[in-house]
Amino acid sequence: MSNTRDHSLESLAVNTIRMLSIDAVEKANSGHPGMPMGAAPMAYALWAGHLKHNPANPNWFDRDRFILSAGHGSALLYSLLHLFGYGLSMEEMKNFRQWGSLTPGHPEANHGTPGVEATTGPLGQGISNAVGFAMAEAHLAARYNQDQFPVIDHFTYTICSDGDLMEGISHESASLAGHLQLGKLIALYDSNDISLDGNLAESFSEDIQKRYESYGWQVLRVEGENDLKAISQAIEAGQKETTKPTLIEVKTTIGFGSPNLGGTNKIHGAPFGPDEREEVKKAYGWEWEEPFYVPGEVSDHFQGLKAAGEQAEDAWNLLFAKYKESHPALAHELEMVMQDELPANWEEALPTYQPTDKAVATRSASGDALNAVAQGVPTFFGGSADLASSNKTELKNQGVFHAENYAGRNIWFGVREHGMGAALNGMALHGGVRPFGATFLVFSDYLRPSIRLAALSKLPVLYVFTHDSISVGEDGPTHEPVEQIPSLRLIPNLKVFRPADANETVAAYRYALNRHDGPVLLALSRQNLPILEGTAEAATGNALKGGYVLADSEGTPDVILIATGSEVSLAIEAQEKLFEQGVNVRVVSMPCRELFLQQPEAYRESVLPHAVTARVAIEAAHPVGWEQVTGDRGAIIGIDTFGASAPGNLVLEKYGFNVDNVVTHAERVMKA
Amino acid sequence: MSNTRDHSLESLAVNTIRMLSIDAVEKANSGHPGMPMGAAPMAYALWAGHLKHNPANPNWFDRDRFILSAGHGSALLYSLLHLFGYGLSMEEMKNFRQWGSLTPGHPEANHGTPGVEATTGPLGQGISNAVGFAMAEAHLAARYNQDQFPVIDHFTYTICSDGDLMEGISHESASLAGHLQLGKLIALYDSNDISLDGNLAESFSEDIQKRYESYGWQVLRVEGENDLKAISQAIEAGQKETTKPTLIEVKTTIGFGSPNLGGTNKIHGAPFGPDEREEVKKAYGWEWEEPFYVPGEVSDHFQGLKAAGEQAEDAWNLLFAKYKESHPALAHELEMVMQDELPANWEEALPTYQPTDKAVATRSASGDALNAVAQGVPTFFGGSADLASSNKTELKNQGVFHAENYAGRNIWFGVREHGMGAALNGMALHGGVRPFGATFLVFSDYLRPSIRLAALSKLPVLYVFTHDSISVGEDGPTHEPVEQIPSLRLIPNLKVFRPADANETVAAYRYALNRHDGPVLLALSRQNLPILEGTAEAATGNALKGGYVLADSEGTPDVILIATGSEVSLAIEAQEKLFEQGVNVRVVSMPCRELFLQQPEAYRESVLPHAVTARVAIEAAHPVGWEQVTGDRGAIIGIDTFGASAPGNLVLEKYGFNVDNVVTHAERVMKA
Repeated sequence: MSNTRDHSLESLAVNTIRMLSIDAVEKANSGHPGMPMGAAPMAYALWAGHLKHNPANPNWFDRDRFILSAGHGSALLYSLLHLFGYGLSMEEMKNFRQWGSLTPGHPEANHGTPGVEATTGPLGQGISNAVGFAMAEAHLAARYNQDQFPVIDHFTYTICSDGDLMEGISHESASLAGHLQLGKLIALYDSNDISLDGNLAESFSEDIQKRYESYGWQVLRVEGENDLKAISQAIEAGQKETTKPTLIEVKTTIGFGSPNLGGTNKIHGAPFGPDEREEVKKAYGWEWEEPFYVPGEVSDHFQGLKAAGEQAEDAWNLLFAKYKESHPALAHELEMVMQDELPANWEEALPTYQPTDKAVATRSASGDALNAVAQGVPTFFGGSADLASSNKTELKNQGVFHAENYAGRNIWFGVREHGMGAALNGMALHGGVRPFGATFLVFSDYLRPSIRLAALSKLPVLYVFTHDSISVGEDGPTHEPVEQIPSLRLIPNLKVFRPADANETVAAYRYALNRHDGPVLLALSRQNLPILEGTAEAATGNALKGGYVLADSEGTPDVILIATGSEVSLAIEAQEKLFEQGVNVRVVSMPCRELFLQQPEAYRESVLPHAVTARVAIEAAHPVGWEQVTGDRGAIIGIDTFGASAPGNLVLEKYGFNVDNVVTHAERVMKA
Repeated sequence: MSNTRDHSLESLAVNTIRMLSIDAVEKANSGHPGMPMGAAPMAYALWAGHLKHNPANPNWFDRDRFILSAGHGSALLYSLLHLFGYGLSMEEMKNFRQWGSLTPGHPEANHGTPGVEATTGPLGQGISNAVGFAMAEAHLAARYNQDQFPVIDHFTYTICSDGDLMEGISHESASLAGHLQLGKLIALYDSNDISLDGNLAESFSEDIQKRYESYGWQVLRVEGENDLKAISQAIEAGQKETTKPTLIEVKTTIGFGSPNLGGTNKIHGAPFGPDEREEVKKAYGWEWEEPFYVPGEVSDHFQGLKAAGEQAEDAWNLLFAKYKESHPALAHELEMVMQDELPANWEEALPTYQPTDKAVATRSASGDALNAVAQGVPTFFGGSADLASSNKTELKNQGVFHAENYAGRNIWFGVREHGMGAALNGMALHGGVRPFGATFLVFSDYLRPSIRLAALSKLPVLYVFTHDSISVGEDGPTHEPVEQIPSLRLIPNLKVFRPADANETVAAYRYALNRHDGPVLLALSRQNLPILEGTAEAATGNALKGGYVLADSEGTPDVILIATGSEVSLAIEAQEKLFEQGVNVRVVSMPCRELFLQQPEAYRESVLPHAVTARVAIEAAHPVGWEQVTGDRGAIIGIDTFGASAPGNLVLEKYGFNVDNVVTHAERVMKA
């Protein structure tokens, strides 16, 4: 912001943001005008006065990050992006919420819209993503900054709403942010006392200040929504407080300026029509008739701000050039990290196992693989929701990530699965780190909304979920996943791997780290599983295709057994028994069904020839979806009820996961 | 508790609880001994001194409720139930965590174990169920109590852990409980500074007192875990505070008495073996060798407490008899309510629609049905997570449930989907109310863990989820369910209905209210749908079987179109077009696929004859699972990618939900 502030120009700029947002909603005849009208001043104060960014290069790595947690106010964000010169055209503003536009109803990251940092709308996610952004920044700064070279040094800002603060996920992530003392996280809270259904007081009566202070945050309050100076001062106070995140509660009026609807829920989620638009224009003193109008002086003003942004990046480029001279190796690594590239040799430390090796739980093999990846990938970074010892996710000798050691690579998320999920998304969106998170598979339900957003936003997040079936045993049905694996497979763009043994676990890591356009989820066993003949070769080969022939008979098979995870070794046992009866059996291991089904027809045919209709799929999970693989004449051994509390082997046996039952099914489908 | 307290006897009773818990874990060689060892005194103080209950009749309606939120400490609960004479035998104690026992790894409601009020284990759920229990109590008390007749007057107690308080769901429900001023909710917090992975301080540094005060709770603290008197006084203070829920933080030592493992995470989740058991015995001054031993004086002590419980219920029975005399109509209704029975005429007000009526969104038809049900079912009770106006769930003229009007039947849950889910479970577990909750279908993901527990616990919870497909339109993929319907169908014992029109919506309500052993979920349209020929009859007939022939051709059909929800009217349109081409088309409406698949073979054959293999299933959702209905030779029109932001009709059209595409698929499968 220039030193000599022109208040009337600033006011006009704020009203331009409001009018653009209003006009976008009116033209679409759909959307949320109230939030932009109330929050435009705080957004303007932040973007014009404090946000370090270069609209000409939305990918500048050391930019401040801005996440619109209240994603329903997307018109506000698009107006900012248009006016600040991000290259979001007026045509796109006019195509708000239309097919194929860059201006969808809620902001979508990786949708092509320049400057959109996160996919938001489902409440609580954005502010929780912001915690992940700040964690990534803190970690990278600790790892790469050197004396006089603060090459990673930016703030994470978010604008959030009442609804965000009501969602449990926001409690989890705020508690985590306070615990981690993330001083560079600043949240502007658009506090308008209105929720979708009416007055907020009908459902929400927390003492917000006390609550956030209980988490270890600094809490500030601004009474006047249009008081740019006060908002600015609060942001500065947030910047100065380096050991606490800051929440700035700005009291606002939803639909500010609308004489008949402002301050009510009626202006939350619908256009208000030409008559009220006229009234609003009067209230703003807006003198132009045509919609989507930007006054020339406002346009010039934003041009000037844009130029300042370019200078900021130029200065950083200079700093980085000097850093590169002083610390060439580190700078080289950071360059790679900023591009989200993997080192050429990152796979070197990944282990290979032989059938003569002792049986090992895939969660333990995963622990070894994680540590091997951590050796090869410098910013591989993550942890567990208080189950690291069970999930086997500790990165050895890599320290714990906390306020005294942001270079630590083990994150203690606490029992905060959902907050973890959103933080992982934030880290991936920030870039530079390759994040992973862990819990029991059954608790994937707790973070499912964040997994969905990772998939929608095409984020390379890795989920390490252990205790993958009823073989969990004594803990009983509350802890035994049944429907989780098949239901996770339904999330578009998520890849679910359930490896059969240690080698397939390594294959899954190989696939996961090489994937850059979506999340990968590992479902891992608690119990030991033998190393199978053939998986060592597959770990760098066909296992990466999602499914392959693991053990074959001579000639055309009489029957094909298809299995995942712990049931693959069961299939091999059944194969042996059927061999004794003279039956030709092929065993197909299918660690990732979605991936297999995406392979070319010829490959799929080579694994599952059309001619062989006698097929049995075996998976200790809900059977849905295996029909695609077995066809009408095949059979599926699965579980469509809840599990039970008893020793794991007994539960498996009782639910039909035993050699005799597989043989019986195989015999039946061969007769069919 | 008797006035003359025998401290040594009390101490012995506490140690008996501890030793029983330890021995159960040791015998099972699996379980969580640390929590019972630390929390036994607070449990004993509560149960022996304050809990109003009658072990001889665990179903006494006006008993205090006790929910062990820290469900991993199930051995503690089972020990209490055994010792207090609930009829949980010593044999069951010895069968802890074994196949077919009443003592599964985590407590399971409706599993047959007397005195288990809730299924707990997934953290945060129990304490959030407790909020629902207290809401049900407050509502029933407001509705039925009369001057001098406090027939509904009981407390809800819970013991929770650090993990419970870290989960976002517990924030949501605590915030709601404070807002609702639920003074009869008392939570004992087993504060032991240890989580599964180690020291709590590594991941959790909240100021608990400040946090709960910010929600509007009274917060008390007891320093000495074995100080029964201090615990008792805190409970009394909780009872006296009638306008705030109370959290009593009791500082404890996990594994109290274990010299080598006490106070560490090593004693959280595993047996500690015979050597350490010997050390623990010494620490407790426990003199008996054999495991599962109950000293005679302790046994007598609990017998005495049991007798006091019987007297308490006797007194209540007397009160109720007098209430019945004074208020016969109300008492009659309450008797029915306490049995969870529906009035004989409850269905009377349900509407019927004719094809000549105007098209109506199923969410709106649902609003009418809800109001009709509310007329017929006096304790039908629920609300929305701040989307009542979109979900159409307002019960008209029934008031809002809040501290000044607990008789109100509309609950404003706020933007707290997960807290809502757990509260609904608590209400259903409490009994006497028929609870419902609402949000957008896409946000079912936010409360999925609670939906799962409703299904596992066989609870008659009703979910009213609207905006059921990509036809949501402009709000875009974050708000458009794609995988939700099929993934909800995978939860065992949950019934998902997606009605085709207003009449099928009524049918779904009919089914839901008549179901008593599991939850029902309605997926309802945002957009208007025509009233279809034939659904009025089906609403009391075959629609209740999950699927039926809605519109048939003469003779054997050439092709069968199977659809749900908004796609049924599309199927009817396609049928008309195919008729013009001389094709015999049957249209099957399948509002609840799970239910249809459970029908007898003969019925299913009458709807989907084996001979007709040309079948097309149409549903604007992920296609998984329809293979069970279409077979290999059929086709499925579904969506396996995310949705898009644009007007709803256009999105449907682009994704293939149009007559031409249905006709093309039908022609293809007829040729196959």
